[in-house]
Amino acid sequence: MPFAARLDNVETSAIRELFKLLGKPGIISFAGGFPDSAMFDVQGIQAAVQKALADAPGPALQYGATEGYDPLRAQIAAFMHAKGAASVQPGGLIVTTGSQQALDLLGKVMVDPGDRVIVEGPTFLATIQCFKLYGAQMVSAPIDAQGVQVDRLEQLIVAHKPKLVYLIPTFGNPSGAMLSRERRLRVLELAVKYQTLVVEDDPYGDLYFGEAPPPSLLALSPQVPGSADWLVHCGSLSKVLSPGLRVGWMVGPAALLAKATMCKQFSDAHTSTFAQATAAAYLESGRMPATLQHVRQVYGERARAMGAALQRELGDAVTFTQPQGGLFFWARLTGAGGKLADAGELARRAIAQGVAFVPGSPFFAADPDPSSFRLSFATADVARIEEGIARLGRAL
Amino acid sequence: MPFAARLDNVETSAIRELFKLLGKPGIISFAGGFPDSAMFDVQGIQAAVQKALADAPGPALQYGATEGYDPLRAQIAAFMHAKGAASVQPGGLIVTTGSQQALDLLGKVMVDPGDRVIVEGPTFLATIQCFKLYGAQMVSAPIDAQGVQVDRLEQLIVAHKPKLVYLIPTFGNPSGAMLSRERRLRVLELAVKYQTLVVEDDPYGDLYFGEAPPPSLLALSPQVPGSADWLVHCGSLSKVLSPGLRVGWMVGPAALLAKATMCKQFSDAHTSTFAQATAAAYLESGRMPATLQHVRQVYGERARAMGAALQRELGDAVTFTQPQGGLFFWARLTGAGGKLADAGELARRAIAQGVAFVPGSPFFAADPDPSSFRLSFATADVARIEEGIARLGRAL
Repeated sequence: MPFAARLDNVETSAIRELFKLLGKPGIISFAGGFPDSAMFDVQGIQAAVQKALADAPGPALQYGATEGYDPLRAQIAAFMHAKGAASVQPGGLIVTTGSQQALDLLGKVMVDPGDRVIVEGPTFLATIQCFKLYGAQMVSAPIDAQGVQVDRLEQLIVAHKPKLVYLIPTFGNPSGAMLSRERRLRVLELAVKYQTLVVEDDPYGDLYFGEAPPPSLLALSPQVPGSADWLVHCGSLSKVLSPGLRVGWMVGPAALLAKATMCKQFSDAHTSTFAQATAAAYLESGRMPATLQHVRQVYGERARAMGAALQRELGDAVTFTQPQGGLFFWARLTGAGGKLADAGELARRAIAQGVAFVPGSPFFAADPDPSSFRLSFATADVARIEEGIARLGRAL
Repeated sequence: MPFAARLDNVETSAIRELFKLLGKPGIISFAGGFPDSAMFDVQGIQAAVQKALADAPGPALQYGATEGYDPLRAQIAAFMHAKGAASVQPGGLIVTTGSQQALDLLGKVMVDPGDRVIVEGPTFLATIQCFKLYGAQMVSAPIDAQGVQVDRLEQLIVAHKPKLVYLIPTFGNPSGAMLSRERRLRVLELAVKYQTLVVEDDPYGDLYFGEAPPPSLLALSPQVPGSADWLVHCGSLSKVLSPGLRVGWMVGPAALLAKATMCKQFSDAHTSTFAQATAAAYLESGRMPATLQHVRQVYGERARAMGAALQRELGDAVTFTQPQGGLFFWARLTGAGGKLADAGELARRAIAQGVAFVPGSPFFAADPDPSSFRLSFATADVARIEEGIARLGRAL
């Protein structure tokens, strides 16, 4: 059967092949990118869906507006206000089927074949593939522990005139990096200076372990006149409440949201009103602050345990920055003491020792770093983390 | 902001403008394309979501496989078996976010800019727009009360070598037409003869009022050797259970489903597992047959009332075929007795009289019939239907 040419731009993921091995009994996995199911507030969600179906069963089960279910849009706006984005209005956001759909809609609305898109190197794998399906040429901007290097980013914007710049400024996947406040303001200035759309993907910003991170680009945008016209912010309930609801949202310029809404109409008509009404009832119930406090505490503990275990078990063979939030460690093999420096080879040996993680190369749109790898500390408890990292030490 | 060129292929829908007028107080609307909220089995869905969250809260709230939630795939296969499609295996279908997403994935997987797509004239409006966003050139195949005219369809396939042929064989939207069994077999033969993908969209097949319609193309495909390799079947729970769940599915050749799954991964990762687990529990509960019996009885009564009222109030100024299922009357103004023959003008006059419907022209990908219009009998009760059609008579 003759498939469309756009599929030729996307290869089967190397990670998918690895994931097939995870069914092996007894394996400890640091490979996933998902939250711990044990942390879901099942009771709260049960109460929310019952309330939604009791209060307004018709709207919760009927077709809904493509832009989103109004009570949820109001709750999301309030949630964003509480995080410092005071300018967000319910009518100034659309609900998406997870934030993945926001990326797909941005690709559909913005990207012509051959257009350049700048992403962080490394970045979220599904972002690269999603934009490539629309024919984007991906450009990779280097990062450090303070996130994207803004001087390099400016040079790349000048050189490539990208259709958009995609960033995960807060606890990036896979980098765990946190863009500094100073750099955030610089990014907003670049958006205005070069009239370039900047997409802020923010699924992890609520998952901080100590001090809160700097305000989001969205929350800072009033400080940089004109920047709101060149900024899209993508949010999600997936990492803090439940990925299974598939509830995300997108804040952006009105003209862009109108185009995205038209495309969404022909993509899935609207996000499940059943899930939206449940999410709205949950946010309205006031349980979210306690849920957030709980996940921050548990993930923080696991992150500290993993950092300590890595230093103890791998010593100077590995280098990393201790993450201040999110779900991930991003590390590099140093080759010190003649040890392995190739993370792909380490991943294969690790499987044999009963521990899994994801090598870093696939996360780069260009110039992969073969020494890099990603470890998720989200789904294993402290004892399993310590055992898993000990196995990793043996594999090395 | 410079949007992607593909958006230039899609115009804002004329229907959307009309829908803005529906908020007028006291208006009786035959304009919608949705089921009656009053018919939703709220109690059954409440029980299903509670069971899903009690039995397996983790999988119901966590990320899930892009192909779909396995318990739901098994239930859908059983549901399809009960409708005569005995060959459907759980692994031979993928779950989609409503059947609208199946169309979007088909566009992404199959359609290169400039490819031809054949649809019925008239057909579902969102199908036309969805494929146009991928650059399709739409070709319109004429229909009559027995559905698409297969001789003309064959000529068009020969002339245009389409990437796919999209049909709603059973109680089409907007036509209400039912493709005869003989024509169904001819369509399957054409698919094999010309190695042309045929997409059967079947959201309405369960909504019959008397005798069951002929088996679906999918159920008939074993009778035409090789046809299963060129057939995609799209199903949905939206019209029979709840559109708000956004649960549809796609059965098709394995290679195509694999490509669609890859695209879906980057579109929305997966359909809400929360909604999928609820739908699975509902289907497992055994309530579906009674739900179907109920909606068939109520919609059948409304369809008969609308047909009688149209004859009584509009007489020979209108012509139509009494639908045997689905949600729609498709009618034409005859101009008899010097009365109005333009359905767009009638729609404007009707709003002034307090009744709304959708003129037929936007449903044609080419050669619109300005005398045609669509009336939904789904959401008004018999008394409102009689009053609404009386108003329509006055408008005429």
